[in-house]
Amino acid sequence: MRLSSDAKGVYPIAPTPFLPDGRIDEASIDRITDFYGEIGATGLTVLGVMGEAPKLDGAEAAAVAARFIRRTSLPVIVGVSAPGFAAMASLAKTAMEAGAAGVMIAPPNTLRTDDHIVTYYRHAAEAIGPDVPFVIQDYPLSFSVVMTPGVIRRIVADNPSCVMLKHEDWPGLEKISALRGFQRDGSMRPISILCGNGGLFLDFECERGADGAMTGYAFPEMLVDVVRLVAAGERARAHDIFDAHLPLLRYEQQPGVGLAVRKYVLMRRGLLASDAQRKPAGGLSATARAEVDFLLARLARHDGRARLA
Amino acid sequence: MRLSSDAKGVYPIAPTPFLPDGRIDEASIDRITDFYGEIGATGLTVLGVMGEAPKLDGAEAAAVAARFIRRTSLPVIVGVSAPGFAAMASLAKTAMEAGAAGVMIAPPNTLRTDDHIVTYYRHAAEAIGPDVPFVIQDYPLSFSVVMTPGVIRRIVADNPSCVMLKHEDWPGLEKISALRGFQRDGSMRPISILCGNGGLFLDFECERGADGAMTGYAFPEMLVDVVRLVAAGERARAHDIFDAHLPLLRYEQQPGVGLAVRKYVLMRRGLLASDAQRKPAGGLSATARAEVDFLLARLARHDGRARLA
Amino acid sequence: MRLSSDAKGVYPIAPTPFLPDGRIDEASIDRITDFYGEIGATGLTVLGVMGEAPKLDGAEAAAVAARFIRRTSLPVIVGVSAPGFAAMASLAKTAMEAGAAGVMIAPPNTLRTDDHIVTYYRHAAEAIGPDVPFVIQDYPLSFSVVMTPGVIRRIVADNPSCVMLKHEDWPGLEKISALRGFQRDGSMRPISILCGNGGLFLDFECERGADGAMTGYAFPEMLVDVVRLVAAGERARAHDIFDAHLPLLRYEQQPGVGLAVRKYVLMRRGLLASDAQRKPAGGLSATARAEVDFLLARLARHDGRARLA
Amino acid sequence: MRLSSDAKGVYPIAPTPFLPDGRIDEASIDRITDFYGEIGATGLTVLGVMGEAPKLDGAEAAAVAARFIRRTSLPVIVGVSAPGFAAMASLAKTAMEAGAAGVMIAPPNTLRTDDHIVTYYRHAAEAIGPDVPFVIQDYPLSFSVVMTPGVIRRIVADNPSCVMLKHEDWPGLEKISALRGFQRDGSMRPISILCGNGGLFLDFECERGADGAMTGYAFPEMLVDVVRLVAAGERARAHDIFDAHLPLLRYEQQPGVGLAVRKYVLMRRGLLASDAQRKPAGGLSATARAEVDFLLARLARHDGRARLA
Repeated sequence: MRLSSDAKGVYPIAPTPFLPDGRIDEASIDRITDFYGEIGATGLTVLGVMGEAPKLDGAEAAAVAARFIRRTSLPVIVGVSAPGFAAMASLAKTAMEAGAAGVMIAPPNTLRTDDHIVTYYRHAAEAIGPDVPFVIQDYPLSFSVVMTPGVIRRIVADNPSCVMLKHEDWPGLEKISALRGFQRDGSMRPISILCGNGGLFLDFECERGADGAMTGYAFPEMLVDVVRLVAAGERARAHDIFDAHLPLLRYEQQPGVGLAVRKYVLMRRGLLASDAQRKPAGGLSATARAEVDFLLARLARHDGRARLA
Repeated sequence: MRLSSDAKGVYPIAPTPFLPDGRIDEASIDRITDFYGEIGATGLTVLGVMGEAPKLDGAEAAAVAARFIRRTSLPVIVGVSAPGFAAMASLAKTAMEAGAAGVMIAPPNTLRTDDHIVTYYRHAAEAIGPDVPFVIQDYPLSFSVVMTPGVIRRIVADNPSCVMLKHEDWPGLEKISALRGFQRDGSMRPISILCGNGGLFLDFECERGADGAMTGYAFPEMLVDVVRLVAAGERARAHDIFDAHLPLLRYEQQPGVGLAVRKYVLMRRGLLASDAQRKPAGGLSATARAEVDFLLARLARHDGRARLA
Repeated sequence: MRLSSDAKGVYPIAPTPFLPDGRIDEASIDRITDFYGEIGATGLTVLGVMGEAPKLDGAEAAAVAARFIRRTSLPVIVGVSAPGFAAMASLAKTAMEAGAAGVMIAPPNTLRTDDHIVTYYRHAAEAIGPDVPFVIQDYPLSFSVVMTPGVIRRIVADNPSCVMLKHEDWPGLEKISALRGFQRDGSMRPISILCGNGGLFLDFECERGADGAMTGYAFPEMLVDVVRLVAAGERARAHDIFDAHLPLLRYEQQPGVGLAVRKYVLMRRGLLASDAQRKPAGGLSATARAEVDFLLARLARHDGRARLA
Repeated sequence: MRLSSDAKGVYPIAPTPFLPDGRIDEASIDRITDFYGEIGATGLTVLGVMGEAPKLDGAEAAAVAARFIRRTSLPVIVGVSAPGFAAMASLAKTAMEAGAAGVMIAPPNTLRTDDHIVTYYRHAAEAIGPDVPFVIQDYPLSFSVVMTPGVIRRIVADNPSCVMLKHEDWPGLEKISALRGFQRDGSMRPISILCGNGGLFLDFECERGADGAMTGYAFPEMLVDVVRLVAAGERARAHDIFDAHLPLLRYEQQPGVGLAVRKYVLMRRGLLASDAQRKPAGGLSATARAEVDFLLARLARHDGRARLA
C-alpha cells in the first residue's frame, strides 16, 4: 500500500512514547496505534518532529517505525528528515522495507532561495529513490524555510514521487487556495494536502480544499469529525465541534511546550503510560497542568470524550 | 501623566488609519480614540508594529502620535523603535513634548546574546534620557530576539525608567510566573506586565499575574471584560467571554494577514473609514473576508457587540 | 549628473566622521572628500551601513549627504535604506534635491522568498520615483537575504531605474560571471557592478567582469590601482599590489570591528580628526591597535603610501 | 591517549575523501593521514562539517573514523554533532571504542539565549558520558549561535570533560584574550584553544594566546610553521610565511565553495585521488580552477611546497 495523491482524512502524528527512564514504551505504541484505528484515522505519521524523532538513534528510529507499521493496517508515513542524504536514504530504505507507505521530508533550516529549496527536494528524491512516495513538510515557523506556492509547484513537477503536502504554513489559507487553483488551471498535477499546525485552522482549511489533517492534537476524534462534517456540507456543526476544542487546542499548539501538553493529555486519556520526554524536554509546571485540567473540564461540557476519570 | 509600574487594564494598540489613497485618516484617528475611551481602556499605544509605524516618515509619525494624544485624556505610549539611537531619541523627545506618557522600544533583530540585549536597552535608555518611562517589547516571534526572565530582570535593574513589559513571548505563561516570582523573592522591583499576541492567552495570562492587555484585537471590549472578570474572581465568566471570541481572535492573530483582518473588522464596526494599509500590505481575499464575516456572525450569537449592520 | 549603468572605477564608501563628543565632524567630511577626489575615485557613496547611517536622525542624514555632495564634483550615491517606504522616499527626495547622483537600497532582513525580494524592490522603486537611479545592495552576510542571479535579473527587468549592483555576496565570483553571462545572452540589460566586502576579492572580481569597487578600505588608492591595472591587462602587477595590502585588508574586513579599524587607519593617515563612532560601537583594544600598527609597518615596506608619521 | 587541555599544535581537519562515484576512498584516507603525520601535525580531527560528516550515514561515519584512527598514532578528535543526544551518544561511544582521543560538539542552530547554550552542552556531556573529553565548536558564521566568553566559561565550569575550544568566531581575537584573561584571574580553568576559520587570523591568534590551529587549509605545513615560529618568538618570519599563503588561504576560506577549493588543491598535491564531494556539493567552475592554479603558481615563488607538477 503506497501513499498516493488520493490520500484523505486524518493522519495523526503519533508521539513516540517513552518510559520515565527514557526507554521506548512499546506497549503504549501498540495502545495508541489501536486507538487511531478505532477513531477513524485514515493513516498515521511517525517519527515527525513532534514524535521526537531527532532524539532517537538510528536503530531506535527503525524499531519504532517498524512497531507502528506492524501494529496497524493503516498506511504509515515515516519522517526521514536528516542532516544529509545518506542518512535519509538509509532510514527511508529501512522504513519502506518494514512496510511504510511513504516518507516525509522537511527542509533543513539553512535553505534560503527558491532554487535552494527546489534543488534540495530533487536531491532528496534521488537519494531515497524514485519508487518511494514522499511528503513535503512545509513548516516555516519551525524550519525558517518559506516555500511559495510556485516553489511547491516546481517540486511537484520535478518529482513524480511527491504525492502530498503537509501544510503548516501560517498564515496558510491562501496557500491552499493557490495550490488548488494551480490544479484547476492545469499547471500542477493534483496532490494530497493534509494540514498541521495543531489543527488551529482546520475548520477553514477543509473548506479551502485541504484533504484533511496531519497533526498531533490529543483529541484526534475532533479532527476526524471536522473533516467528515465539512465533507458532508455540515458547516455549522463542523465549526461547533471545532470551536469547543479551540481553547485546549490553542493551549496545546504553543511551540516547545506543546508536546508536553499533548503527552500529558494522552496520558490522562490512558493512551500513554507516561508523559515522559527525552531531553531536551519542555515540561509542564504544576500550574500548567492545572490549566490543562481546567480546559479539559470545560471541554467535557461540550464533548463527552473529554470527560476523564 | 507619566507611565508608571502601576499601570493596569487594557492599552489597545491603535492602528494607524489610512485613506484609500495612502494619506493618514485623521477623522478615524479621532473616532477610534474616542471609542477606546468609551469602552474602558485605561491607556493607548500608538505607532507600534501593528500601527504600521515603519511606514510613516518622521514628520508623519510625530503628527499621528500628537493627534492621538490630543484627543484623549488617557495615557498614551508611543512606539519609538528605530534603526539607531539618534532617530529613537528624536522621536521620543517629540512624543514626550506632545504629551506622551512613555515610549515603547523593541530590540533590533540582530541582537543575539544576553549581553547584547541588556546593553542595547542601556544604550536606548541613555539615548532617550532618564526621565522618559519606557516599555520593553518582548516579541520573539516577530523580532527573533529571545529574552529570558533573567535578562528582563537585568534590564529592569539597569534602568530605573523601565516601568513595563509588553509581554508577547509565545509560549509565555511561565515567563509571567517567573517574573512575578522575582518580585516576590525581592530580586526584581515590580513592573507592569501587559500582554500582547493578539490576546491569544489573555485568559490565563491574567491569572498568572499579568496586569492586563496591550494588543490590537478588534473587539477590545472583550479584553476589558476578561481583565475585569479575572480581577473580580469570576473565572468561569472570564473564560466564557474569552472562548466566545477565540475563533475570531485566532483568525486575527495570523502573522502578516492579521492587521488586514483587524482593520477590516474595525471598518465593519464603523470605527475606521477604510481598511487601507500602506505597502507592503497583506490584503484579504474575498474568501478571507467571507470567513471573517462568518466568524463575526457566529460570535454575535454570544456577544451582541459583534452584531454588525 | 545621474548615475548610469556605465559607472566604472572606485566609489569609496565614505565613513561619517564624528567628534569624540558624538557631533558630526564637518571638517573631516571636507578633508576626506577632497582626498577621494585626489586619488582618482570616480564617485562616492555616503550613508551606507559602514557610514553609520542608522545612527543619524533624519535631519543629520540629510545634512551629511548634502555636505559631501557640495564638496565634490564626483557623483555621489546616497544610502536610503529605511524600515519603510515613506522614510526611504523622504530621504531619497532630499538627497536628489541636494544633488545626489542616485541612491542605494538594501533589502530588509525579513525577506525570505525570491518573490518577496523582487516585490520589495518594485515597491521601493515606486516609492522613490522612476526618475531616481538606484543601486541594489546585495550583502547576504549582513542582511541575511540571498539573491540569486535570476532574482537580480528580475529586479533589473522590473525597474528601468535600477542601474547598478553593489556586489558583496560571499562567495561571489560566480555571481559576477553569471550576471555578465545574462548580458551576453541578451537576457539582462547591462548594469554596472561595483564590488564591496572590503575588497577581499577585488583582484579576481575585476577579472570576472566587475566594473570596479565600492567599499571602504582605508587605502582606497590600492583599489584604484587594482581596477586600473586589471583594465590595462597588467595582471601580475594588479595582484602584487593587492597581495601587499591583503594582510591589513583582511584585518579590516572583520565584521563589527572592521569600522573601528578603518576609522583608526584613516585617523592615522590624517584624514579623520578622530576615530570616534556613535553607539553601538565596536572599539579597538590597545592590542588591536598595536596589531594594526604592525600591519601598517609591514605594508609600508611594499607601498610607501602606508608610511605614516 | 585521551585529549586534554594541554593539547597544542596543529590538528588538521581531515576531509572525507570520496571516489567520483560517491564511495568512500579509503586509500586516500590512508595517504592523507600519513601526510599529516609527516608534516608535524600534533593531532587530527575527522567528521567535521568540512569533513562532510552529515553526508555519511551512521555506519559510514563509524567506518571512516575508525580508519583514520587505526592509521595514525596521533590523537584523533571525532565530530559527533547530531540532531539529538541519542545519535550523538551512539557515535561518541563508537568513536571512543575505536580509539578516538575525544569528540567535538557543535551547537544546533536553534539555540538562542545564553542559558540555552549552556544547558545544551550540559545535556550533551551527560549524553556522551563524563569520561569522554569534548571540544566546543564555536563557529557563529556557520551555526548562527553566538557564545560570549562568559558562556564558554560557564560551559567549562559545568563540564569537567570539556577540554578544548575550537575557536572560529569572527571577529575572534578579543575572545581569545578574554578567555586567557579568565584563566589568569582564576575564574576559568585552563583549556586548549585551537583556531579554525581556515586559518585566516592564525598569525595573530597565536600571539593572543591560542595553542594552535584546527582547520583544513590545504597546506597545513604553513599552519605548523606559523605555530612554531610564533612560539619561538620569530614574529616577522611567522608573518612572512603566513602572508605568502594568505591570497590562497583567503580564496579557500569562502563559505560553501571553500571545500571544493580545498579538495582540488589536495588532489593537485597528490593527497586525494579525486576532489569529488557528495551532494549537496559546491563545485568549481573552470574559471575558478584556473584562479586557484594561478594562486598556487604565485605562492610557489615564496614556498616551494606549492610547486606542483
